[in-house]
Order: sequence, then structure tokens, then C-alpha cells
Amino acid sequence: EISKEFLDKANVTIGDRILVSKDDISYEGILLDRSEDAKDAYIVIKLDSGYNVGVNIESATIKLIEKGDKPKIGYSGEKIEKDSNKDNISIISTGGTVSSIIDYKSGAVHPKFTAEDLLRANPELLDIANYDVKALYNVLSENMETEYWVKAAESVADDINDGADGIVIAHGTDTMHYTSAALSFMIKTPVPIVITGAQRSSDRPSTDAFLNIYNAVGAAKSDIAEVTVCMHNSLNDGDCALHKGTKVRKMHTSRRDTFRSINSEPIALLSDGKLKSINLPYIKRGENKLKLNTNLETKVALIKSFPGITSDIIDYHIDKGYKGLVIEGTGLGHLPDYMVETLQRANDEGIPVVMTSQCLYGTINMNVYSTGRLLQDAGAISGLDMTPETAYVKLAWALGQSDNLDEVRKIIQTNIAGELNESSSLKYFLN
Amino acid sequence: EISKEFLDKANVTIGDRILVSKDDISYEGILLDRSEDAKDAYIVIKLDSGYNVGVNIESATIKLIEKGDKPKIGYSGEKIEKDSNKDNISIISTGGTVSSIIDYKSGAVHPKFTAEDLLRANPELLDIANYDVKALYNVLSENMETEYWVKAAESVADDINDGADGIVIAHGTDTMHYTSAALSFMIKTPVPIVITGAQRSSDRPSTDAFLNIYNAVGAAKSDIAEVTVCMHNSLNDGDCALHKGTKVRKMHTSRRDTFRSINSEPIALLSDGKLKSINLPYIKRGENKLKLNTNLETKVALIKSFPGITSDIIDYHIDKGYKGLVIEGTGLGHLPDYMVETLQRANDEGIPVVMTSQCLYGTINMNVYSTGRLLQDAGAISGLDMTPETAYVKLAWALGQSDNLDEVRKIIQTNIAGELNESSSLKYFLN
Ligand SMILES: N[C@@H](CC(=O)O)C(=O)O
Ligand SMILES: N[C@@H](CC(=O)O)C(=O)O
Repeated sequence: EISKEFLDKANVTIGDRILVSKDDISYEGILLDRSEDAKDAYIVIKLDSGYNVGVNIESATIKLIEKGDKPKIGYSGEKIEKDSNKDNISIISTGGTVSSIIDYKSGAVHPKFTAEDLLRANPELLDIANYDVKALYNVLSENMETEYWVKAAESVADDINDGADGIVIAHGTDTMHYTSAALSFMIKTPVPIVITGAQRSSDRPSTDAFLNIYNAVGAAKSDIAEVTVCMHNSLNDGDCALHKGTKVRKMHTSRRDTFRSINSEPIALLSDGKLKSINLPYIKRGENKLKLNTNLETKVALIKSFPGITSDIIDYHIDKGYKGLVIEGTGLGHLPDYMVETLQRANDEGIPVVMTSQCLYGTINMNVYSTGRLLQDAGAISGLDMTPETAYVKLAWALGQSDNLDEVRKIIQTNIAGELNESSSLKYFLN
Repeated sequence: EISKEFLDKANVTIGDRILVSKDDISYEGILLDRSEDAKDAYIVIKLDSGYNVGVNIESATIKLIEKGDKPKIGYSGEKIEKDSNKDNISIISTGGTVSSIIDYKSGAVHPKFTAEDLLRANPELLDIANYDVKALYNVLSENMETEYWVKAAESVADDINDGADGIVIAHGTDTMHYTSAALSFMIKTPVPIVITGAQRSSDRPSTDAFLNIYNAVGAAKSDIAEVTVCMHNSLNDGDCALHKGTKVRKMHTSRRDTFRSINSEPIALLSDGKLKSINLPYIKRGENKLKLNTNLETKVALIKSFPGITSDIIDYHIDKGYKGLVIEGTGLGHLPDYMVETLQRANDEGIPVVMTSQCLYGTINMNVYSTGRLLQDAGAISGLDMTPETAYVKLAWALGQSDNLDEVRKIIQTNIAGELNESSSLKYFLN
């Protein structure tokens, strides 16, 4: 690494006050850790003005002004008192980057924060609500398992029963949308349940954690009593978007505004912890009574189609005792014709096969092409405008409700938690 | 179907001249076939002005004015003469909607056109080039098989050897981007190879076929000697975008502007059969000599990760003799930690495992999280900023070149056909 060598030579480490000179300009400030995306030849300095600048170190010189400590998270240590004028928000942490710190030795990111750490690291949160905090898991969300969804739903229900006015769940972003879909199907809620996270760990100057959590708390205090995802809406620290838990997806490996509503728009935008605009009708606080239904069939698989796929993969899952399959097909919902026979076998054995599209946007329509008609004849169920991920979670949940093929078909095609959007066909695309 | 009943009652069929009255307005015109997306309560009429209007038939009345024929495709029947002042473009048809007509009985769409039919249906094409036409397949592209890519590449090479100045391939949209990636790796070309298609069959008034083919011929006459995809760039009949064959993906089940460059922008925009703007550097006509390399290992699979995935699925593929796997992981390129052991097994048995992301946008980075580091230690190869689809095709091709794990790893991470884009990380998102 170019910049590491450069810093080592000057005996400078993160947190030191330094002077960097280049051409005719010099910058004095604290050396910060860099974001994952930074080009290697850049270092980042926090100026006294509060601004961060990136400097290309090529032909630059560096001078140590004062040794400093690696920036610490603002643990206040003070006791958190409740204020009876404020809403009671429950924060449940599950891990993910939002609860992570960097291991400066290996450079890798590990989940380490509890919900309480999160609060102490972001003391401004204390101005806007009272909190109950709970560390449920401490995993990167790629390691979330389907049973974790169940425990999360139960934990949320406990907090609601205990009088929480709203719930914020801190979660990794990798599978946040699977969890948000799962909680959407599992919980009918009288209060907001808002999932949030971060793309940069909470101990980094460039973290997006604060803005996301702050707005998530705002959403949890609002009237929108649904399961939602609250994340950055742009590259900058501006608004957050509040997405329906069943209509959202991680669409970029590293941008802060990675979460996007698919075949829908966000329910609302938030800014400074307050609702800024509302785009969609929503279920209001108190409209639903709390109802928990966590029955889940976990022998369900999500299979992506591609030219060269063979029927064996379907047979394998049937033989292994899988109870349902979601196919991520091509276009309007297709598999090669030679797969039809095996789908028929699944159908004959009472195994629902739900068709979704790898296009992601748009809706399944198996009436247009001969291929789609054959698939329907073989029993394939249209996933309509659900993402493959939401359809997967929904099928697992539907099979938890019934093992009757016709009933499962009916559940899949009935709107349960905003996952089916009749007006989605051409309207929402890449925004 | 509401509208069918309504039409049957008035004894009206497609192509008839009718008068529809509703409230205080009446429309006189020819009854057209509807697009797949039309709401069922709408019928579409072509007015004498040339405009099409959709009328909601609820509380409307209809009157037959004159029986008419179902609109026919403009088969000229005339012999197609070559003009020595024009470029020689070879049109190869493979099927897909662009080569399809509607079966008015079943309502489904079947591929039926040959390349010659395409030409006769779009006689304006004759103004801008000479053509050699060839019907290679007549399949919906969901039925394309990997061996078809090989035959298509050979057919293209034959035409180039026979002196074609450019190639246009008419193709279904479902798997167009897989084929474009395959041809990109298989052919080094001195002339443009442009793949195009349509979302509405060529016998429909609303077809996008003409504009796409016309601009594809324009691209085939241009200086851009790469394998590209030429398709509508917006919902309207405006520009077409010319995408790199390795950086493009179908992103909507039914919009005309469904094809999008991922982690790149389109090389160029075309309008009226001419280049309108050029966004990226490209390989120029004649810069490369024709070189065909169609070696392909077909025992390769594309596997999508999801919470609940089990290691068994990897073991299954290893046991079945698969030679390579592409994983569509989460986030920056992750699988659950419990999968690492099986990946290690693949690695130990010399089977390359390439990691891509279901986010689609952005680049794989297995250095950030502990999960990614474990995967790398187990031998996972970063697919960098390739789409899962392009990585799948590339791995099949790479394994056709070598069965040595280290060499395959090197091929995957070396740019062969514009599939790796160093500057892609945050820049290109949802546009
Ligand atoms: N891999 C991390 C990513 C994040 O939280 O942003 C996770 O999902 O836990
Ligand atoms: N299913 C069709 C869709 C199209 O051509 O637009 C195909 O890929 O062949």
C-alpha cells in the first residue's frame, strides 16, 4: 500500500496531528482512517474547520505535529435517564457494520457494539427519545439464519407488549431486506418497526450510521406502523428513505444509498429525524393490533436460472425433501422448456414452485410466451411483482401456514404486507 | 377478459374500423391489438391522425363501421438487390420476440420470422445497407443453450470471413446479455457485432423491433468493432443505447428500455440509425484481426446465496462433477461462514469458485469483512465488478482455456472483453 509506506516513513499513525504539503498548498489536521473505496494513494485529514480532505500523496511531504490517539467513539459513560415527555423507543442490535468497529491490525471489520454502545456513540439520539436497548445478536448479516428472524420477531413483540412506542433494529446491510421481509410477514404491528444499518462502521469518521439511526428513530416515533427499512437516500448526508420492508433490496455493494424500493417508491423521506415527505399510503399507528405469526418452513430454496441450468437441480431439491422452491427465472418469468417436466414433478408431489424474475424490476407474466404457458400448466405460481428475495421469504412463511398446495398458492398471490403492488408494472424503474 | 367480451358482443375484431363513444367523446379508428401491459379494461384504437388511444371501455359503447383485416406486416415481396455503394450487413436471426408473431387464437407469442422476414417487414432497412440474411435458430431465448452460443459465434465468423462489414443478431431479450457476453469472450472481431431484439413482437403496432434493428444496423456500419447490445434507451421511440456485451443486463420484465449497462455506461447512443454520442473509448474497426475461440466448459453453475442456503448445494455440484461455480453472494461478496468449509473442499479439488454480488451494482471486495477474508482463504476468486451473468459465462469460457486453477483465476481477473472496469466502483448506479 502506497499510503501506508508513506505514513510509516514519517512515523505517523491514525489520529496524529500532521501537516501535509503539496505544490503550494498545506493542510494541517488529524489523520483519519480512510473509507473502503478510497484510492490507495490518498490519505484523509480532518481539518480544524471540521471538513475532511483527501490528499493525493504523490510528491507530497508530511510532518508530524503532535502524536494523537486513534479517534475514539464518544462514549459518554453517563447514565441514561428517561424523560416522561419523550417516546419510548426500543433499540435492538443484531450486528452488522452499524455495530462494528475496525480491527486496526487486520483491517477487517467485526461486529462488536451492543445497542447500548450504539447509543453512547451517538449521544444526540438521547435528545429525541427514551430508549430501551437490547443486544440480540452480534453477527454480520451474511450469517443471519432463518431462525434468527423468528427470535427477532419475538423480541420485537416483547418490546411492543412492554409498551415501546416504536422499534429500531440495527442490522447488517447484506441481508437486511430478507429480515425486513420476514418481520413484515411475521408481525402485525401497532407501532413502527424500523430496520437500519450502515455501510461504514460506527467508529469511522465517514460512517453513515448516525444519520441512519437518527432518522430511524424519527421513523419509529412516527405514525407509520409498518416494518420498514430506513437508509441513506443519496451519496451525501442528506435525506434517508423509508422503504416498505417487502419492497426493498440492496442494489450496490458499497454505496450508502444502496437500498432501493423495487416496484414501489419509498413510503416516505426523512430529514433531521423528521418525516419530510410521504409518498404512499401506510398503516397508521394503532390501526393493527399486535399479532405474531412466526411459523416458517425452512426447507425452501431460491434457485437462479441461467442458460445451461439442468433439471437435476430441481430433482435434487425434491429428493432432498424441500417443501417449496422459488425460481429466479429470466424475463417475464421463464425457465427453459426442458425444465417443465421436472416442475410438473414438483407440482405432482405437492411442492409449490414460485416464479420470479432476475430482471428484478417489473412483474411476472406467464401468459405472454409459450414458455410461460407451459410453466403455468406445470403448476408454476406467479410471484407477480415480488423480488426473488421477498418471494423466497414469503414462500417459507406461507408454508409455515399451510402445506396444502392450493392454499399456499392463494397466500402467495394475496397481499399480506404490501409485497404485491398492482400498479407497479412500468412505473417504478431504477430510482 | 372484460374487453374481449365487450368486443365480441359488438362482433368486432382486431383490424376493424370502429366508433367508440364514451361520455361526450367518440373515437373513430382501427381497433389494434393491445400491448402485454395494457389493463384489461382498455382497448386501443389507431386514429386517422396516426395516434393510438387507449379507451377504458367501462360505460362506453361501440359501433362497427367497417370490417377490416388484422394489420399485416409490410411484406414487400420485391427482390432485394445489392447496391455496391452500401455496406454489407449480415443479419442472423435466432428467434425471440423480435422474430415473433402473435398467435391470435392462444394469444401467446411464438418465434416465426426468419431474418429475411424481418427485412421485408422493415423495408426502410433497405435504404441504409445491403444484407445477407440467415436464420440460425428460431427459439425464445429462455431456451438458448450454451452450445448455441458456439454455433452463433461460428456463424458470425463465417460471415466476417465472407466480407460482412458488420453483423446484426436478432435475439430474444431474456438471455440476450448471456449471449452477448459469450460472443464477447469467443470472438475477437474486426467489425461491429450488434445484438438486438424487441419487447413487443414484430407484427404489433407497438413493436420496438424496427427502431432497435434500424439502430443496430447503424451500429453495425459504425467504427465500433466490439460485441454490443443495441436496445431502446427510454420508454419512447427515441434513442437506442449501445451497451458493451459484457456490461449489460435485462433489468425490467417488460419495459422497452429494459437493458442497462451495469458498472459502466453505454458505449454510445444512436438515433435515426446514426451515432449520436460516444461515451466510452472503444476498439476501432480493423484494430483486431478475426480470432475465434469457442472452447467452453459447460459444467459450470450459477448459485444464488440466501439466508438458509446450505453447504449441501456446493457439495452436490462438486459430487456431480461440476468444473466451476459462480456464487451470487450478498453485499461485497459474502456467503455465510458455515459455507467456508465446502468452498475449501472445492478449492482442494481444483474447482474454481468465483464470487459475485446479488447487489449487481458495485464491485466485490472480500477484504473488508471477516466473512470475505475467510472466503478468500478458502480460495474464492473475486469476480470484481462483473455481473453474476457475465462472470458465469466468463468462467465457462476460462475453463475452456485451462483446467489449471491458478490459470483460471488469472483469466477471471484479467480483462478480456471490457468486462472488468476499474473505475466502476461508485460511479455508475441505476442509470
Ligand atoms: N457484511 C455486513 C455489511 C453491512 O452491515 O453493511 C453485514 O451485512 O453485516
Ligand atoms: N421471452 C422472449 C422475450 C423477448 O424476446 O423479448 C425471448 O427472450 O425470447
